[in-house]
Amino acid sequence: MEPLISPAVSPVLDAHGMLAVALEQARLGFAEGGVPVGGAIFRTDGTLLGVGRNRLVQEGNCSLHGETDAFRAAGRHPTWHDTILVTTLAPCWYCTGLIYQFRFRQVIVGDSVNAQGGMPWLREQGIDIVDLRSQECIDLIAKFQRTRPDLWKECIGEV
Amino acid sequence: MEPLISPAVSPVLDAHGMLAVALEQARLGFAEGGVPVGGAIFRTDGTLLGVGRNRLVQEGNCSLHGETDAFRAAGRHPTWHDTILVTTLAPCWYCTGLIYQFRFRQVIVGDSVNAQGGMPWLREQGIDIVDLRSQECIDLIAKFQRTRPDLWKECIGEV
Repeated sequence: MEPLISPAVSPVLDAHGMLAVALEQARLGFAEGGVPVGGAIFRTDGTLLGVGRNRLVQEGNCSLHGETDAFRAAGRHPTWHDTILVTTLAPCWYCTGLIYQFRFRQVIVGDSVNAQGGMPWLREQGIDIVDLRSQECIDLIAKFQRTRPDLWKECIGEV
Repeated sequence: MEPLISPAVSPVLDAHGMLAVALEQARLGFAEGGVPVGGAIFRTDGTLLGVGRNRLVQEGNCSLHGETDAFRAAGRHPTWHDTILVTTLAPCWYCTGLIYQFRFRQVIVGDSVNAQGGMPWLREQGIDIVDLRSQECIDLIAKFQRTRPDLWKECIGEV
């Protein structure tokens, strides 16, 4: 088990608290009939900058994954090096590219069982990733992949 | 010089014609005071699916680069393997991730002089990239980087 985010990094929420914010988004997405992946971006001081969820179904927008929707919602910032990106599911390569380009200070992941994406590659590049192995996140995506394989494949571009 | 897209791939527009569509978007972005990078997505039969441009300034939306805005505009597709992504500037790592995740059939690039992004890495992964070395694209970005270094740095997350 990797060390969790230290209390010094976020006096407001610990990593599990931050993940709960993203998980709420994922559950909202599921209730909407969408792809249940949620994201959130915090400053390292614990300030919430934005939340997001996959909007493929809700808006017909294939560019909004949980991570990129949170990025959009967080607004403009000269740097992202002092921010933490939280996602309920390990980032696909699209979101892996987002993380690598903008060098978030840390990435918190809920589930890396149902998808690995570019997570191993990000670690090789030195990105700080905290994998919380959340059973709630794991169960939510597993249920979605089982019941909506068509949507799951579409959202990651797999035929 | 790499071989250009073959006439058999697009009976409607050749690679230069496709790049002109993306360049028009980049010029629009420049006129709006935005980051002048444009994108377009075509089916391999030449059908235009969507165009886009960086919208950081126009919408305060850091998630919309030329490529991701065109992806958004192109709508929902079960696969992207039969599509061509065109961009006036070599993809940053964010857009590199997009390309690698969705495996566009081909990527057409206007300028790889002012930024390389993940282009060399994409080639290593076997992605088909046609670099047109367009002087118009090169001049447009060079002018922008010179006059708005603040915006240039912000849009790629460099402090």
